[in-house]
Amino acid sequence: MKHQSVTPEFEAEMRDRLREKAFVEDTSPYLEEPRGRWSGQGLVIAPGTTQEVAFVLGRCAEANIPVVPYAGGTGLVGGQISADGAVPVVLSLARMNKVRAVYRDENVIEVDAGIILQDVQAEAEKVGRLFPLSLASEGSARIGGLLATNAGGLNVIRYGNARAQCLGLEVVLADGTIWNGMSRLRKDNTGYDLKDLIIGSEGTLGVITGASLRLMPRPAREATAMFVVPSPEAAVSLLARAGDLLGEAITAFELIHRQGFDFLDETGITYHAPFAQTPEWTVLTKIGLPEGQDPEAALTALFEAAEEDVLDGVIAQSVQQADDLWAIREQIPEGNRRIGSVSSHDISVPISAIPEFIKVAPAKLAEIDDFRINCFGHLGDGNLHYNVFPQPGKTRADHAHQRDAVKACVHDLAHAMGGSVSAEHGIGRLKVKDLETYGDPAKLAMMRAIKAALDPRGILNPGAVLRG
Amino acid sequence: MKHQSVTPEFEAEMRDRLREKAFVEDTSPYLEEPRGRWSGQGLVIAPGTTQEVAFVLGRCAEANIPVVPYAGGTGLVGGQISADGAVPVVLSLARMNKVRAVYRDENVIEVDAGIILQDVQAEAEKVGRLFPLSLASEGSARIGGLLATNAGGLNVIRYGNARAQCLGLEVVLADGTIWNGMSRLRKDNTGYDLKDLIIGSEGTLGVITGASLRLMPRPAREATAMFVVPSPEAAVSLLARAGDLLGEAITAFELIHRQGFDFLDETGITYHAPFAQTPEWTVLTKIGLPEGQDPEAALTALFEAAEEDVLDGVIAQSVQQADDLWAIREQIPEGNRRIGSVSSHDISVPISAIPEFIKVAPAKLAEIDDFRINCFGHLGDGNLHYNVFPQPGKTRADHAHQRDAVKACVHDLAHAMGGSVSAEHGIGRLKVKDLETYGDPAKLAMMRAIKAALDPRGILNPGAVLRG
Repeated sequence: MKHQSVTPEFEAEMRDRLREKAFVEDTSPYLEEPRGRWSGQGLVIAPGTTQEVAFVLGRCAEANIPVVPYAGGTGLVGGQISADGAVPVVLSLARMNKVRAVYRDENVIEVDAGIILQDVQAEAEKVGRLFPLSLASEGSARIGGLLATNAGGLNVIRYGNARAQCLGLEVVLADGTIWNGMSRLRKDNTGYDLKDLIIGSEGTLGVITGASLRLMPRPAREATAMFVVPSPEAAVSLLARAGDLLGEAITAFELIHRQGFDFLDETGITYHAPFAQTPEWTVLTKIGLPEGQDPEAALTALFEAAEEDVLDGVIAQSVQQADDLWAIREQIPEGNRRIGSVSSHDISVPISAIPEFIKVAPAKLAEIDDFRINCFGHLGDGNLHYNVFPQPGKTRADHAHQRDAVKACVHDLAHAMGGSVSAEHGIGRLKVKDLETYGDPAKLAMMRAIKAALDPRGILNPGAVLRG
Repeated sequence: MKHQSVTPEFEAEMRDRLREKAFVEDTSPYLEEPRGRWSGQGLVIAPGTTQEVAFVLGRCAEANIPVVPYAGGTGLVGGQISADGAVPVVLSLARMNKVRAVYRDENVIEVDAGIILQDVQAEAEKVGRLFPLSLASEGSARIGGLLATNAGGLNVIRYGNARAQCLGLEVVLADGTIWNGMSRLRKDNTGYDLKDLIIGSEGTLGVITGASLRLMPRPAREATAMFVVPSPEAAVSLLARAGDLLGEAITAFELIHRQGFDFLDETGITYHAPFAQTPEWTVLTKIGLPEGQDPEAALTALFEAAEEDVLDGVIAQSVQQADDLWAIREQIPEGNRRIGSVSSHDISVPISAIPEFIKVAPAKLAEIDDFRINCFGHLGDGNLHYNVFPQPGKTRADHAHQRDAVKACVHDLAHAMGGSVSAEHGIGRLKVKDLETYGDPAKLAMMRAIKAALDPRGILNPGAVLRG
């Protein structure tokens, strides 16, 4: 069924029925995405209540007008941008940004979907709890989008991704029906797990308007260490050993290649060099322990127990030193941006396959051209940001004609090793073809059947995840 | 579309196409359930491979014959039993009970769906890892059924329920298609979360034939304590305090009412009484810490920090003493069985609502008749087994006419407090009406739409979860 574009009459009806605040002056921020790859179109509407969201979706369903849900707009795969097709309603959650309730003793916070991640973290801290989801865009990313894309980030190894933080959802469905699933229950086996179906569906099955989130105890004592490892194999072995010694106390376990340091140097980004010479491979790890326990001692014990896996290491002796070590990891993406990648990849493979991937991939890429590779990421989750760059003196533009070949090379290899071509960024509009290429046919058929069942008109974020 | 019963011709075809081993002599165990509430019907087939499962389902789909998946048969809500309607194929996974692969360094085990839980626990221990799912029926429950029902058990507070232990699935769909989702990935955001949709769907959306499971580090040091608390309020406050002090080290946190002890005495079940007088309320907790840390000291610190919440307590000084304490908790269900409940309930409420529930429920039940109540369970998950018993000299039969009223009383109250009428046992056939009564209408509509989309003929476990 062909979708209809927003008409002047439709816009007039919306302006008549919704308060002025629902319409922003400057809509341009809603029609761009961070990398500037797409510019979008649409009537931006920012409802103030779940009922208003239901009204807008209900009318869009009747008029067969597409709806693009928009949270923080920080997505990297174009899930929040409609560049073509019928002119949609861009449904912003920005005005629905309140904390609904906090239940300290049961470690639960209930929020509007438009609340910014950093604000949830702050609310949790106020009551002596931790909301563990943490990623680079936490200052602008909103909970609704983080759940719709099942966002990952730094602490997944310990706390899981966005999915694991969510106990319940309030969702407006394609026909404007409100599903009230705002549960605070830890256990509820009454029917299908619709919460997890909506989480990660990128706005194609419903619009998340509220969430009930799990809070965690704050680790009383944290410590950070950077270990120099001789190889990715040693890093994987160190990870297993750390699990044996430290159990679930490992909050982060990041692999960094020397290329990351070199790009910081090359682009004039300053940092405190932890070692006299930049090591080929380093692991940056953070652990958190309850009161009365000594995380520095635990890291020292790991360092001693892992002598064949570790060449050298520093254990931060102060918060400042820990921040300095983390600043290196956190600045690597900016270094990458300044160099300008030919192609960036958010892949995952089974953890024990990481060394093989890191060994094989450069050889395959060398068959295309002479590149520099910055491989870093969440080793503890099997998630590598595997980014391909031009050699000095060349630019990404010089390799534009090779971009698709580079992407296919990296994705084919990850897939062949049982990996994923989108570990944490999702499908959006950028990777629809990848999903068709690499996705299990039975899985794709199930997804299409579910999409047709829950959104028969296909008005929810058409073109995202599945071909419209 | 009306379902067809298994015909002699169909059985002949199955016997012709499948090996003899697929047909058991004595089918009676497959046609009963633990409480003897139903006796079932059907042609029992035990395929040896995923391909054979696919063949059977494909033929059943063509012939429109219902299929009842059967794993360990330990379910308590009749999900594994078809008592009426067209005579189905009862599809037993018992022969598919192998470990497929173990990946120690990445904490993953891949298994057939028919493997028994205890065998998975043993395989994990062999490689120095933990498979944390643990429940009373672990000696006979099979992974496929545990995942299909999203089983809970004792360690959910720390490790989550069955869902949280699963990284990937292999599933045969209603038309005989095989979905290969046997992923070992910790992060994969490529499309809808079909794994979690199948988990907990109780065999109504697909038949699980294989699973990729997450292993955990084994806590090097464990300790158990039983604390006497003045009230359920104090137990909830103790739980929050324990979280502050011990973080995620709490492996179990069980609430026990004196009625549980009294029933053991009354039914001649022996146990080591931890206190001179049986306390009104006790909390049984277990914590596990990594190497080099002292869980007894941690429990002592909790005991001291929680003085206003705790009247008395014992911290097990030996494995034997810990086992004695846990034996009390583990024997309570047997005591209940010997007394014979009027009605048993597997409910959950938000953790902070538990004291109110425990205060209000007895008064409401007293309006029906004079009962004894044994309230115990997984306080850390908000999950109470709230069981209602006759007074001495009376039997459950004397209250048979009140059973529905008792059930409605308990379920209405749990629902009114934002709780669940099936925290961990699922819906099966026993609670289909409860789901219709208490389930959110939008949720039920979504469930029916998904069921129709993935199983258009409705041949998968008809009558379970949703009305056939």
